[in-house]
Amino acid sequence: MSIRVALLGCGVVGSQVVRLLHEHADDLASRVGAPLELAGVAVRRPHRRRDLPLDPALLTTDAAGLVIRDDVDVVVEVIGGIEPARSLLLSAFKAGKSVVTANKALLAADGATLHAAARDNGADLYFEASVAGAIPLLRPLRESLAGDRVTRVLGIVNGTTNYVLSKMDETGAGFAEALDEATALGYAEADPTADIEGFDAAAKAAILAALAFHTRVTVADVHREGITEVSSSDVASARAMGCVVKLLAICEAGGGSIGVRVHPAMIPRTHALAAVSGAFNAVFIEGEAAGELMFYGQGAGGAPTASAILGDLVAVSRNRLSGTRGFGESSYADLRIRPMGETQTRYHVSLQVADQPGVLAAVAQAFAAHDVSIQTVRQEGHGDDASLVLVTHTATDAALSATVESLRDLRAVRGVTSVMRVEGMGTR
Amino acid sequence: MSIRVALLGCGVVGSQVVRLLHEHADDLASRVGAPLELAGVAVRRPHRRRDLPLDPALLTTDAAGLVIRDDVDVVVEVIGGIEPARSLLLSAFKAGKSVVTANKALLAADGATLHAAARDNGADLYFEASVAGAIPLLRPLRESLAGDRVTRVLGIVNGTTNYVLSKMDETGAGFAEALDEATALGYAEADPTADIEGFDAAAKAAILAALAFHTRVTVADVHREGITEVSSSDVASARAMGCVVKLLAICEAGGGSIGVRVHPAMIPRTHALAAVSGAFNAVFIEGEAAGELMFYGQGAGGAPTASAILGDLVAVSRNRLSGTRGFGESSYADLRIRPMGETQTRYHVSLQVADQPGVLAAVAQAFAAHDVSIQTVRQEGHGDDASLVLVTHTATDAALSATVESLRDLRAVRGVTSVMRVEGMGTR
Repeated sequence: MSIRVALLGCGVVGSQVVRLLHEHADDLASRVGAPLELAGVAVRRPHRRRDLPLDPALLTTDAAGLVIRDDVDVVVEVIGGIEPARSLLLSAFKAGKSVVTANKALLAADGATLHAAARDNGADLYFEASVAGAIPLLRPLRESLAGDRVTRVLGIVNGTTNYVLSKMDETGAGFAEALDEATALGYAEADPTADIEGFDAAAKAAILAALAFHTRVTVADVHREGITEVSSSDVASARAMGCVVKLLAICEAGGGSIGVRVHPAMIPRTHALAAVSGAFNAVFIEGEAAGELMFYGQGAGGAPTASAILGDLVAVSRNRLSGTRGFGESSYADLRIRPMGETQTRYHVSLQVADQPGVLAAVAQAFAAHDVSIQTVRQEGHGDDASLVLVTHTATDAALSATVESLRDLRAVRGVTSVMRVEGMGTR
Repeated sequence: MSIRVALLGCGVVGSQVVRLLHEHADDLASRVGAPLELAGVAVRRPHRRRDLPLDPALLTTDAAGLVIRDDVDVVVEVIGGIEPARSLLLSAFKAGKSVVTANKALLAADGATLHAAARDNGADLYFEASVAGAIPLLRPLRESLAGDRVTRVLGIVNGTTNYVLSKMDETGAGFAEALDEATALGYAEADPTADIEGFDAAAKAAILAALAFHTRVTVADVHREGITEVSSSDVASARAMGCVVKLLAICEAGGGSIGVRVHPAMIPRTHALAAVSGAFNAVFIEGEAAGELMFYGQGAGGAPTASAILGDLVAVSRNRLSGTRGFGESSYADLRIRPMGETQTRYHVSLQVADQPGVLAAVAQAFAAHDVSIQTVRQEGHGDDASLVLVTHTATDAALSATVESLRDLRAVRGVTSVMRVEGMGTR
């Protein structure tokens, strides 16, 4: 008896799946208890030249036919996007196949439908590769920490934006220039929208929050801001206060509700996430009993993502051989998603101000009017160059935004140079 | 139907297990699919005062009777040590119970017997808590990376020695003084032998290597050196070359054999492990496809260890409800354990030398005679204070030790001040 695998997609990740299945065949057979065999590979262009240990007879353009074939046990999906992936996977589940997928967009948009289809057909749905590439994150969250209460997940989960922000920090370049370099070097895609607008990170945040808090979270529940508005002056402001700008995914639970958000933020250079540069990912998970855990590694790329897929494939295959299922969806907690305005956070604000008596008093009054406490204030320059740099204590995001609006209306304030949330100063 | 848990031991870790079972009862029931109930708690002193949500009627001194009781499904063992733990667990398996244990010493001494007993009785043996406390390490190794080929595990897995070495580095204190402070602050036990002689780290290294390489490894296979010989002059030498001294656990595979070792080593201050201070643990895992992964968190303590135990308890309980077993022992690879002499490593050597012409030539000749290349050499001081500091390229440990022996015999060498392996300079 062998486990027969249908592979949907044979691009950067899929071809590495093929390679690993071939090169590690003996190890995989020993670990699963039966050989893993490719039953078919669905591709758009079957005649494209591929330098892979792959029998061309396995290639097909008929993905829909492949996923329901009687001789297929497990479907591995690496085509991405919502359709046709969703229809293919639902049809695979209906035919009793288990699924391993790297499709974060689909899981974050409509994970509940997929989980239900898996459950109703006694099949597995595994998706370690959908978040942070090779870093084992989802299995620790849903299994290792199943006896604990996760309170917070905080991480860098998008390599493209991390590369761009690292470049801006290192060279002083503006966003457009840094993105151009990332594109030239292959760190950003031709259409970088999903990355730079934070859609990719938001999908991952939704998946992480759902697992961490045992509740349903879709990408629509995630407050999302990309990095296109991050200016070289934001980065310089961060540097001046010993911080660096990162695009963070933050999932928080407390008081019977959760918040999930993705936005650029300043974090202290001494924070472990500050040292995560280039295409690497790192995620902190805080458990009530476990304390603070950190996971670090390559967040993308063919081989790392394929490693995560193969790990899932081994587990799913073992489950099939023993006629069981692994952990399915756990959404019993059914928690309220709190709107961004209720989020407790801190702001860094830098203002160009008139160099005259009473300016600080007027600015301080604007903060006080919204019940926002100022932690530090620093005056810089003189005359036309006079500026104030303020960092607040924790307050609600709504109060902070309202404060910034008030500041823009003050006569003494000539301009708001930089406004950004500050994270990671509380505990580390 | 509920899952009935017998707890062996109610000390620092056991009492946290009791607390979490009580406080998280609803969450645990939702995650398992059935309530978890304490069936009994075996302790030595049942009348000792305990400030725990625990019915005193559950306390018993008859551990042997408890583990075979018909109303027990899972045994959680946190008493530690070889006996009576081994006999109790074997008897539990024979009675068909699954086991969750934090007992690194027992697993590293005789894991094979336990795994066989679990398998023969269709039961589970889970032991995430035995290595690095709350950090999910064993599950990622045996499940997430099951489709990859792990080539190296490198980590700090003992908090006591890490605290002592951090102190020595920060204050310039000698070993004895730093240990005294660790003892006074509760970071070292009254009898610190298991920690400072590296036995604890060696047991963990054996467990990690067995999982990483799918082969049997016992603590007897681990080359072990503790930190009692680390002097303040070693620490100062490390500092002078931009390094810090850490007790490392290193598991390496290649060429059909593996090496497992625990010893103090210098690592560059820029290495991520250098920043791991105090009681924290951190482990790097290198997978052929995954690349480099790092896991970081609290390596010991009641609550963190209990978090890992509860995670295992959820998995084992789910397996029982679905009538299946999780991943058991995977030792198909049956690899040769290579002796320490074959290990490829690097040395830092500092020598007090006569301040006269020809000394460097004589020293260099001693290295060359054993085919060891020198990477850097630095001369310091003059006259009676003249010294040479050398760092080698990679060579076998046998060649390096032989070189050091030759150096001790040289007339121009007055004394060998510090000899220590150097790690982490190759790739990072």
